[in-house]
Amino acid sequence: MSNFDALVKKLEGLKTADMFENDFLLTWEKTDDEIAATFAVADALRDLRVRGVSPKVFDSGLGVSLFRDNSTRTRFSYASACNLLGLTVQDLDEGKSQIAHGETVRETANMISFMADVIGIRDDMYIGKGNAYMREVAAAVQAGYDEGNLEQRPTLVNLQCDIDHPTQSMADMDHIIHEFGGVENLKGKKLAMTWAYSPSYGKPLSVPQGIIGLATRFGMEVVLAHPEGYEVMPEVEAVAQKQAAASGGSFVKTNSMAQAFAGADIVYPKSWAPFAAMEKRTNLYGEGNFDGIDALEKELLAQNANHKDWEATEELMASTRAGKALYMHCLPADITGVSCDAGEVADTVFDRYRLPLYKEAGYKPYIIAAMIFLAKMRDPAAALKALEARGQKRIF
Amino acid sequence: MSNFDALVKKLEGLKTADMFENDFLLTWEKTDDEIAATFAVADALRDLRVRGVSPKVFDSGLGVSLFRDNSTRTRFSYASACNLLGLTVQDLDEGKSQIAHGETVRETANMISFMADVIGIRDDMYIGKGNAYMREVAAAVQAGYDEGNLEQRPTLVNLQCDIDHPTQSMADMDHIIHEFGGVENLKGKKLAMTWAYSPSYGKPLSVPQGIIGLATRFGMEVVLAHPEGYEVMPEVEAVAQKQAAASGGSFVKTNSMAQAFAGADIVYPKSWAPFAAMEKRTNLYGEGNFDGIDALEKELLAQNANHKDWEATEELMASTRAGKALYMHCLPADITGVSCDAGEVADTVFDRYRLPLYKEAGYKPYIIAAMIFLAKMRDPAAALKALEARGQKRIF
Amino acid sequence: MSNFDALVKKLEGLKTADMFENDFLLTWEKTDDEIAATFAVADALRDLRVRGVSPKVFDSGLGVSLFRDNSTRTRFSYASACNLLGLTVQDLDEGKSQIAHGETVRETANMISFMADVIGIRDDMYIGKGNAYMREVAAAVQAGYDEGNLEQRPTLVNLQCDIDHPTQSMADMDHIIHEFGGVENLKGKKLAMTWAYSPSYGKPLSVPQGIIGLATRFGMEVVLAHPEGYEVMPEVEAVAQKQAAASGGSFVKTNSMAQAFAGADIVYPKSWAPFAAMEKRTNLYGEGNFDGIDALEKELLAQNANHKDWEATEELMASTRAGKALYMHCLPADITGVSCDAGEVADTVFDRYRLPLYKEAGYKPYIIAAMIFLAKMRDPAAALKALEARGQKRIF
Repeated sequence: MSNFDALVKKLEGLKTADMFENDFLLTWEKTDDEIAATFAVADALRDLRVRGVSPKVFDSGLGVSLFRDNSTRTRFSYASACNLLGLTVQDLDEGKSQIAHGETVRETANMISFMADVIGIRDDMYIGKGNAYMREVAAAVQAGYDEGNLEQRPTLVNLQCDIDHPTQSMADMDHIIHEFGGVENLKGKKLAMTWAYSPSYGKPLSVPQGIIGLATRFGMEVVLAHPEGYEVMPEVEAVAQKQAAASGGSFVKTNSMAQAFAGADIVYPKSWAPFAAMEKRTNLYGEGNFDGIDALEKELLAQNANHKDWEATEELMASTRAGKALYMHCLPADITGVSCDAGEVADTVFDRYRLPLYKEAGYKPYIIAAMIFLAKMRDPAAALKALEARGQKRIF
Repeated sequence: MSNFDALVKKLEGLKTADMFENDFLLTWEKTDDEIAATFAVADALRDLRVRGVSPKVFDSGLGVSLFRDNSTRTRFSYASACNLLGLTVQDLDEGKSQIAHGETVRETANMISFMADVIGIRDDMYIGKGNAYMREVAAAVQAGYDEGNLEQRPTLVNLQCDIDHPTQSMADMDHIIHEFGGVENLKGKKLAMTWAYSPSYGKPLSVPQGIIGLATRFGMEVVLAHPEGYEVMPEVEAVAQKQAAASGGSFVKTNSMAQAFAGADIVYPKSWAPFAAMEKRTNLYGEGNFDGIDALEKELLAQNANHKDWEATEELMASTRAGKALYMHCLPADITGVSCDAGEVADTVFDRYRLPLYKEAGYKPYIIAAMIFLAKMRDPAAALKALEARGQKRIF
Repeated sequence: MSNFDALVKKLEGLKTADMFENDFLLTWEKTDDEIAATFAVADALRDLRVRGVSPKVFDSGLGVSLFRDNSTRTRFSYASACNLLGLTVQDLDEGKSQIAHGETVRETANMISFMADVIGIRDDMYIGKGNAYMREVAAAVQAGYDEGNLEQRPTLVNLQCDIDHPTQSMADMDHIIHEFGGVENLKGKKLAMTWAYSPSYGKPLSVPQGIIGLATRFGMEVVLAHPEGYEVMPEVEAVAQKQAAASGGSFVKTNSMAQAFAGADIVYPKSWAPFAAMEKRTNLYGEGNFDGIDALEKELLAQNANHKDWEATEELMASTRAGKALYMHCLPADITGVSCDAGEVADTVFDRYRLPLYKEAGYKPYIIAAMIFLAKMRDPAAALKALEARGQKRIF
């Protein structure tokens, strides 16, 4: 049986009906079947494209994008996914548009959606805001569809919020699955999601939260390591705890990077800002207290500087399983001696893992395409088979 | 007979030959047949899309967009229309481009048009400039085509100018036609296009001018109401007067909002700046007199504030026909107690009409698509039938 | 035999295998066959489009664009070429992206290329940087492809660098070939690439360098004229010298505009900055010496002003062959009395050549499309024939 046929067969055995005309906002809102289906579709779409078969399912339609933060990777991943499926990206640029001038979210959401099949949003800067905003947009377009204003119900895809970064964590997980030769091999594997030092501040929490909120579903021993004061959102820790218990794995916290790395199969050292500080910053922005924000920035940078020893060094890597743990990062990394004097990772470690890191990133376009595909195809397995049978060439 | 067949049949009875390879700049330059054809094609394209049939007529081609003012709705409507028909939007961003550096309009118009099928322009800020600029561009591409420089003659679509806002007024009118069950039911209906208070200043005149310049063609009793000093362009009033006479309707001016609302079937309360003030502002900009502009702004805001009673209240709405006039707005509206302390409309009125307002906006992408379709298809009725027969699915 | 068949036949006789999966960075890196093939494919693609036959060869795929300098013409030409072939342009906007924040070129090049078939770069501001950057990107995506990170190897297209402007010079040359009725008629023709006065400073050298680096291949008498101190890069002069010798033409330098124009068949008067000054400026930017840059600007403008007599006047034009040399410019030109008080060309001269100038520009989209086509089609002649046979209509 071909790889493609195996993926379709797997998909046929999964319950995905609730994904149809639905959104992808948090991985832990999705069932195990739905998570598995997303990986299967992502891999199947890639299989088609690699064979030169076009998986274009839209003849026309818009993929709206709203980025409230800078982005290269996610922007290109979203553009690639939309393009692969036949959608045209239309940016909602709040600078250029009237959205900043007091329009309600409901109104704007309807106005941009008359021919939108997907809305991708990145809104990760303010604790308590990003995911809430996405839900507001989702509710607005649902109502617009139910009321007969919209001819189709655009699907929301979370391109990073304050809570989760599902396109990243799902791409990361698909990478892990491939590196370990199948999801069935993950049970008991140790994954260390650890804080690392960076000379910048205010990096979002959505990556560590996304990782612990997803990796704990696969029976892995997930360790979250960070210095005291760098706590992530307690709600997400609770999710990780519950999922670890259910999957037969574990979720442990530590303040020791060495402990996290010891014997690990996978390490993910990455800087982030303390949850409490991000909450404070959100409030300061709300109050328009820019002096307060400046003071907070100085304070956080100084706090970071106390933890320069949180670096993924060769010594730490040597302590992982057989000294060969899979090193992961969402990129760009702060590389000691390359992009900064002292950073998240030693340059020799980063260099050795450059290719796996690039491959890790390469899953994201397909993961996003899979999220869209599952939300738009009533019978995704049949659609995949029909696409293969159609055999439309991607390049003439 | 299906809705689609009825629309095509109607279209077949209309003379549209002059729309081919032509522009859409002012509604009153179009014959009654051409206006009717635009509604018919817009409705037919929508009918196809709702049934999942793609009306894509372009395999490739650019839809150039030039927005000299902020826009969400019109930008997305234009992008949607282009995408639906198969064109790719390419922004001419004067900031990014060399257009600001002394290039002549003729040259730029030719340089951007080698593969352009449509050019959509929004240029509504300066009285006497926007429409004139569009005509300059149209003349340039016509000459470029006649001289053999351009392989096709791009169609100009006015996405809002200083005189008219045809994509808005045509969408509004298509909404009215559907709400009243057909264009034949509009005779004798009273439409009140009235000024309303807003705490902002300098809103373009193109909406009220567009409405009185179009609604007067359908035998309606069109009332234009505004406080003294908020006159619109006299040339457009003359057009409205002439058309009202020809259509068996009427065009009346009043300085009383109450009089306008009394017994009205349709009310369109919306703020705009006085024509004379906009002309003055245009001249001040021309002179680079920024102190003068600041002074004018203060003066206009103070003048506006004298007319806070021009609000679409529940009381006024109750005075309309059966208290149930169709409330219209191009959005976003200044809603009292929501987007401002005192505005154009009471929040309860706005809320009650939210869905019809969204639907009103939903006609715009199809109206723009129809304008393009009629300019590019030599036999639009035959093309529609062929599209239905082709039966290309919009979504796989 | 039809024009199209003749072009395909010509192409079949040319060796183009090395263009497949390759880049287009400098014309003088390409063989005579490859240059000829680019003209043939450009003309053939145009022939198809003019006949309404779509040359779309991509069902999906991205054409990444990176413009480090303002651009209207090249941006639209690139967008047109991508659109014609079926690619969607995705801008890499360094302002919006994280590229400015210390990412390595290698990483970014891979991150944006997962679904990119082409990368077009304009980077012409800094001597020694632009072309080098393109080669870094090319090496990165080649490695990414070889290592299995990228599923396809995106082709680099030089949209203007510090050394060459191949899409401009190739479009210019295609224009010359058509104006003179065939490449075989160019032998012995005199082409004057001459400096001209402009009130601006810092114009890139890539146009004059591109022209002398290409025109010298066709047996023409190429004259490079400029005031003392306005030298171009010596490496490119050496290329021109060598090519002129090989092609049986000549390459001569002069400090007299009159000498260059005398008896010329083609004149290309255009301002540029002295190579040495551009090198100095690049170093000043490198040092962050903004006072130095301001001083240099003043110095260069003063130096320019000594040469206001370098203008393409009617008198000079009268001295060309039969007073009817083909006047060329990459546009926009500095026209005396129109865009500036004193400039590169007299208004009456410019006016008389307006249409040929526009036609000159019109070759660029097809030249870019040809560069992409030849890099992506293993058998370009067969692909062209198959496209004609497919007969897909560009407009329904």
